[in-house]
Amino acid sequence: MIGLGKQARAASRALAGLTSAEKDACLRAMADSIEAAAPVLAEANLRDLEVGRGLGLSAAMMDRLALNPSRITAMAAGLREVASLPDPVGRKLDERVRPNGLRLEKRAVPIGVIVIIYESRPNVTAEAASLCFKTGNATILRGGKEALNSNRLIADTLVSAGRRVLGDRFPAHAIQVVPTTDREAVPELLSLTEYVDLCMPRGGESLIRAVTASSRVPVIKHYKGVCHVYVDRAADLRMAEDILFNAKCQRPSTCNAAETLLVDRPVASQFLPAAAMRLATKGVEFHADAESLPVIRQALAGRENIVRLADTGDYSTEYNDYVINVRIVDGVGEAMDHIARFGSAHSDAIVTSDEATARRFLSEVDSAAVYWNASTRFTDGYEYGMGAEIGISTDKIGARGPMGLEELCSYKWLGYGQGQVRA
Amino acid sequence: MIGLGKQARAASRALAGLTSAEKDACLRAMADSIEAAAPVLAEANLRDLEVGRGLGLSAAMMDRLALNPSRITAMAAGLREVASLPDPVGRKLDERVRPNGLRLEKRAVPIGVIVIIYESRPNVTAEAASLCFKTGNATILRGGKEALNSNRLIADTLVSAGRRVLGDRFPAHAIQVVPTTDREAVPELLSLTEYVDLCMPRGGESLIRAVTASSRVPVIKHYKGVCHVYVDRAADLRMAEDILFNAKCQRPSTCNAAETLLVDRPVASQFLPAAAMRLATKGVEFHADAESLPVIRQALAGRENIVRLADTGDYSTEYNDYVINVRIVDGVGEAMDHIARFGSAHSDAIVTSDEATARRFLSEVDSAAVYWNASTRFTDGYEYGMGAEIGISTDKIGARGPMGLEELCSYKWLGYGQGQVRA
Repeated sequence: MIGLGKQARAASRALAGLTSAEKDACLRAMADSIEAAAPVLAEANLRDLEVGRGLGLSAAMMDRLALNPSRITAMAAGLREVASLPDPVGRKLDERVRPNGLRLEKRAVPIGVIVIIYESRPNVTAEAASLCFKTGNATILRGGKEALNSNRLIADTLVSAGRRVLGDRFPAHAIQVVPTTDREAVPELLSLTEYVDLCMPRGGESLIRAVTASSRVPVIKHYKGVCHVYVDRAADLRMAEDILFNAKCQRPSTCNAAETLLVDRPVASQFLPAAAMRLATKGVEFHADAESLPVIRQALAGRENIVRLADTGDYSTEYNDYVINVRIVDGVGEAMDHIARFGSAHSDAIVTSDEATARRFLSEVDSAAVYWNASTRFTDGYEYGMGAEIGISTDKIGARGPMGLEELCSYKWLGYGQGQVRA
Repeated sequence: MIGLGKQARAASRALAGLTSAEKDACLRAMADSIEAAAPVLAEANLRDLEVGRGLGLSAAMMDRLALNPSRITAMAAGLREVASLPDPVGRKLDERVRPNGLRLEKRAVPIGVIVIIYESRPNVTAEAASLCFKTGNATILRGGKEALNSNRLIADTLVSAGRRVLGDRFPAHAIQVVPTTDREAVPELLSLTEYVDLCMPRGGESLIRAVTASSRVPVIKHYKGVCHVYVDRAADLRMAEDILFNAKCQRPSTCNAAETLLVDRPVASQFLPAAAMRLATKGVEFHADAESLPVIRQALAGRENIVRLADTGDYSTEYNDYVINVRIVDGVGEAMDHIARFGSAHSDAIVTSDEATARRFLSEVDSAAVYWNASTRFTDGYEYGMGAEIGISTDKIGARGPMGLEELCSYKWLGYGQGQVRA
């Protein structure tokens, strides 16, 4: 692992010297190469699928592992899109001239070497590598063990394309895949504080916990989303229903989908029946508190089997599925207490027409994204106008919420003097 | 430790609800209380000094531990100064209106709960606590074991003052000192990912390493400064001498003082004798490479004993003293290789009149602060116009370089909708 780390560090120094135009030319060539490599990629992926079958992966996992032609096309399109985004490196973040004439500039710079740990999907390899490359960062990628053949071939294809454009100026170790599926590799890699600047784990709870426990380098977690929609007594209930339906059902597998509905007591008996019927059209299952349970059961008469009492643990579970917790609360204060206790500080929404209540919710809910009269589903790089994102950070140090190109940068201070010394 | 963590988390929620005016009123009352408590503080400090004597602390360590009247006055002045700085919490960092009408605001928010680990000096307790309080963060402080009595009394004094101003609205656990000197306390505290958001260790190499190895919460290191002055062939040698002298001698005990002089070969024989004589006026000792050694020895004829050959390890040592490494290099490229290999990415300077060379150095040296024709000693919150700082971060995630009030904040995204849902 130390070899990978040293090579990545050297590559990161070389990457910092490339111009935006050079990086974009490489990214476009990488897109072409990925398309041209479709047949060999499909072949490598077949071997991975066999490994996956041997490991007894679920049908859903097998699907995520598969690289079909449309996914390969999408990977290439993603690379071209990253090429078209503005380069954040070198951006001036601050400037100040001191009384002694010293001029200080705060400029965005690459972070350096980034380790990305993720699960199955091989298309993440191209996505993560391209975002890091665009921002001048060297990457060391560690995907699922069943995707090793696909991941290595994708990385090789990207690097070869870069070298075709820039020759030896393209660092051969800018994009590396950990070449082993050995479990010890990860803690070893994450002990190399001299060569690795950041680790970003994306995946399930156990993966994130293991990485956090073993890492000596900074970690930015892309953790679960236990997101809430709180329907206040002063809500426009029609709007609330639309927002709830969207937050839960538009794409339940995502981290910004809602897992829990909190309803203010005064509107519960009016809101819940209509909302439950609407969600039930998508087959949503309800885990309801004792107070809301009979209301929902009555509204869904004949389909009581999709409503059950919420048990301990439900409130902090990310279902990623057509399941929702329902709880009646006594106003915005109790809603916020629930969110602070059970939420994952990802995305939470309030629906209300009362501005004072909304402002309190926006100010006191300590989550990466807090919405007033809008769906939690908006927490996303594209929806924020950032372009492609590497994930949604649930951490508070370094980056929080959608992590696009700007969030893949650090900064440094440049001091321009004419001989200034400190008095 | 878990009790401390839970209390701090609850306090951080309460702190987020205080206005800037309330926080500043508390800080001014804290200053008054520290002054009024001078006699009891001196008494508590006497007990600490006895402990220190028992532990056989060096004279320098005993001096840092001592709280004399002028230090107590300085502590109070520091608190008043923090009160007078603008509150960064709530600052709008970005705003965008999306095509669907959703308005997004990126706002600075407190980080939450911050653990600060430091060595001897009890005045750091007031300084760190006040900066964190101003930014709405709850603190858990862990100073040197010999300073426990002073530290606890300082924290108690600050909290009592806050409660006199705000009553129960001032959270009693906003500022806590780890009440034990038990070594196990630190790893235990830093495993509490649910209750602690950030750890900042300030101190020697072994302290930083131990904290980094044991922490599961994010760490922003305030690590050693192995800073360089590179004198280029195109330097104004008079300016170079002034900058070098300032960087090494103005206050050698600081992390932004220079430890190594790199001289470009074409100007070495002209620059080194004058520079060596100038530094020698302050009793600086030279660890020189084989090429510069005879030049310096000759310039300091009669005082050859202050010049010796640099050995392995010298180049990465932070002397914090009147000692300097000297090495002759072949141009800016070799200077930058040296800095990348031996530096600590803190503060580095180039002296040159050649703009292209300077731009290359500014762009390629990957340090928190890089200077062109100015002393490395400027890396400091006050010198940057930030006001008081909690330290100089040598990390690249979260904050880099001087960490003032703005750098003690995280951010969150607020979304203002009118019922928007995702398509």
